[in-house]
Amino acid sequence: MKVAITQMKMSSKMEENIQKAESLIRGAAKEGAKLILLPELFYLPYFCKEEDYACFQLARSKEESLILAHFAKLAGELQVILPISFFEKANNQYFNSLVVYDIDGKELTHYRKSHIPTGAGYEEKFYFAPGNTGFKVSKAHGVNVGAAICWDQWFPETARVLALKGAEVFCFPTAIGSEPVTGKDSRAHWRNVMLGHAAANLTPVLASNRIGEEKQGNTSVTFFGNSFIGDQHGEILILMDDKEEGYRVIDLDLSAIEKERTTWGVFRDRRPELYTAISDYKEE
Amino acid sequence: MKVAITQMKMSSKMEENIQKAESLIRGAAKEGAKLILLPELFYLPYFCKEEDYACFQLARSKEESLILAHFAKLAGELQVILPISFFEKANNQYFNSLVVYDIDGKELTHYRKSHIPTGAGYEEKFYFAPGNTGFKVSKAHGVNVGAAICWDQWFPETARVLALKGAEVFCFPTAIGSEPVTGKDSRAHWRNVMLGHAAANLTPVLASNRIGEEKQGNTSVTFFGNSFIGDQHGEILILMDDKEEGYRVIDLDLSAIEKERTTWGVFRDRRPELYTAISDYKEE
Repeated sequence: MKVAITQMKMSSKMEENIQKAESLIRGAAKEGAKLILLPELFYLPYFCKEEDYACFQLARSKEESLILAHFAKLAGELQVILPISFFEKANNQYFNSLVVYDIDGKELTHYRKSHIPTGAGYEEKFYFAPGNTGFKVSKAHGVNVGAAICWDQWFPETARVLALKGAEVFCFPTAIGSEPVTGKDSRAHWRNVMLGHAAANLTPVLASNRIGEEKQGNTSVTFFGNSFIGDQHGEILILMDDKEEGYRVIDLDLSAIEKERTTWGVFRDRRPELYTAISDYKEE
Repeated sequence: MKVAITQMKMSSKMEENIQKAESLIRGAAKEGAKLILLPELFYLPYFCKEEDYACFQLARSKEESLILAHFAKLAGELQVILPISFFEKANNQYFNSLVVYDIDGKELTHYRKSHIPTGAGYEEKFYFAPGNTGFKVSKAHGVNVGAAICWDQWFPETARVLALKGAEVFCFPTAIGSEPVTGKDSRAHWRNVMLGHAAANLTPVLASNRIGEEKQGNTSVTFFGNSFIGDQHGEILILMDDKEEGYRVIDLDLSAIEKERTTWGVFRDRRPELYTAISDYKEE
């Protein structure tokens, strides 16, 4: 099965972002990709750089989102699996959400980001309620897609629950770049965490990020791209740089990986009764 | 705080292995290491390559183990923290166990390997009952040591529970090498999993492995060394090769790492209520 990551710079004009994302998808589909991963909130500038009440107007309900309707249709037209990130309004709550569409354009899962970061340049707790859906595996034609969103990628629990539910590939749409206050360069750290999930679960991982500087009020963040695909041993297969826009396609032999999972007994030898602290930690 | 990994080839003579291990410890201590990690079952050939009832005679109770007594005394003499791996007999059960000694030679924790592998060359389920102690953090002078044993290192749950219990450094004594049947070269996979644990928990990781070919009956395994230290971002700080015997010392700034953990909110933003599948997964 061929899969694709993407990387793009976002403009302040939504229509331009949509067209750019569509052209990346069309390009990757033409090269045979059946699963194509866009970055997080690809149709907008990353509006969480500052806390701004006006930005809540960007949210839409799942039913009313023209973005979702547009890309659902595109998934069906091109017969590709598309995880689509969007800013969701659900009655009085707002979520950072993702719908995965199958190759017939039908919705497979609706997920709301579980882990919400906050801090200089990434003020997501101001906008998003912590997701209430739990982790979702999309049983698409040809592959079980375990998709979660950006900060979720830092938590081994995200990947493990997705793997237990049958994920055959991990997908993380992302918006990450410079840290305005600490100055931390998180590229290697970011990559190593996700490569660890891939290796621990014998499951390839795809991450698509945005690039370029974006300004909002007094805050500037430079997104670092570095979109990548890692294999089931945590080795890098494709690593994009911090400037290129585009997509990259690779062929994954999912049945060989499935077979390898049975010869490396990390699922056989788990000890769930010793893991209760993970969901119920009490100080001793 | 200075910490050290080691790497050695084991002989069939227990006394030689003990002397070699002691000389590595003395060398590392002389260079200022306060925590020194030996490989798994360092005083024996890796007897799990085949299923052999005679090998059960190698086990000792914790109280009767001369190995433990010897290295507890050495920890006190050199004022170093020593995690010591041993083959434990506990009434009618046998465990793959580890005692961590503090710089005064006193026992801090007694841990029994939770995850027991099996398969060609690594027939541990024949010898060891799955550990019944749960994961243990040793609150030693100057550092909280989260130590587990070999196959435990493949499970994100091991590292996460240790981190939740306050581990400031992960230690994995190991015996890993060639795979007699599948031929898999697990070096990179092995490293990437543990580097992922380090990165996900912002906690440095130490792994000490044996080297060299060992034969038992009709089975031969070549242990690949590659002992390493990874930093809190999952970057390699030290990587030994597959031939050298010795130790390597590095200085870790644990208070800087502790501070970094507070500026990267992966512990703040956990969602324990969404992780119940990890200890209680039910098929949907």
